[in-house]
Amino acid sequence: MAANRQKEIALAAVKLFEQKGYHATSVQDIADEVGLQKGSLYHYIHSKEDLLLQIAHEAITQFNDNMQAVLDTDLTAPEKLVKAVENHITMSVSNMETTTVLLREAFSLGDTQHQVIQDLTDKYVELWTQILEQGSRDGQFHVEQPKVTALAILGACNWVYRWYRESGQLSPTEIARVFSNLFLSGLSG
Amino acid sequence: MAANRQKEIALAAVKLFEQKGYHATSVQDIADEVGLQKGSLYHYIHSKEDLLLQIAHEAITQFNDNMQAVLDTDLTAPEKLVKAVENHITMSVSNMETTTVLLREAFSLGDTQHQVIQDLTDKYVELWTQILEQGSRDGQFHVEQPKVTALAILGACNWVYRWYRESGQLSPTEIARVFSNLFLSGLSG
Repeated sequence: MAANRQKEIALAAVKLFEQKGYHATSVQDIADEVGLQKGSLYHYIHSKEDLLLQIAHEAITQFNDNMQAVLDTDLTAPEKLVKAVENHITMSVSNMETTTVLLREAFSLGDTQHQVIQDLTDKYVELWTQILEQGSRDGQFHVEQPKVTALAILGACNWVYRWYRESGQLSPTEIARVFSNLFLSGLSG
Repeated sequence: MAANRQKEIALAAVKLFEQKGYHATSVQDIADEVGLQKGSLYHYIHSKEDLLLQIAHEAITQFNDNMQAVLDTDLTAPEKLVKAVENHITMSVSNMETTTVLLREAFSLGDTQHQVIQDLTDKYVELWTQILEQGSRDGQFHVEQPKVTALAILGACNWVYRWYRESGQLSPTEIARVFSNLFLSGLSG
């Protein structure tokens, strides 16, 4: 029961942080959203900041886990890159509110808590870089600067949440295909 | 004199919005930063939101103006793309606080004011798309989806403000070169 309540509170917080921003959302807003008194809400959470940390932590951990699963396969580097781009874009778009909170609001965390998210983000960049390094070793990619190239690809993918609309012409999978084609050609050049 | 004061207030607001976020910055914080009473500050500004709109508007207008200048040249599409990437990255990095406020905080504007920024952002995407369309017409680029491809390239460039550090190995110009090489190879494939 408590676990369900905590899940419900986290979902309410994600929704409000996405709509109004972290700073503009009060603990009272979150309590109202789940139909609890503010005092009762504090039985389930320590602070608004802990909620933000929890949301951002779960989101970046999911991105990392999916990426690690791709790296653990026997796929070629180009195949891994296609899979990584598709995973990232479909996950961003199917959890748009969570992605927005991770990418737009996490800077509001205090220094220590923000560093936790930053370290996991650095890890994520490192995993993308490993795909480029594998492709370079195997002679399938021409990459001068694997990390900056990884940041270019990841940046393109991270921006999708800003412009994607369900009413748009392309599905997340089709967008991922356009992106992958661009990057694969770019890396083979 | 009043114009100088307004400039000074806008600079203080950019600094605070970048450091603390728009919502966490009070009008009192801005007044303190420029050494004015809160009441006196209101001689120069209408509201905190107007300041945010002004900052975001100037920033996106500058990006658009620089891009229009590139489009107005007789350069080839690949040359224009190189120039556009370099302009965007060097401008982002040399005005890091303003770029951060534009890209991270503008969502806090009310609907009508946010639409002003959104329209100018749509215009910016359209200008990038025009370079890809020119390259496609001239047979220099293979582009299936010019707009989504423009969003990929712009996303990569827009993400630079999130990870760029002055202490990093590459200068903004070198980062722009890595990015341009990736995209030019990608578009020629």
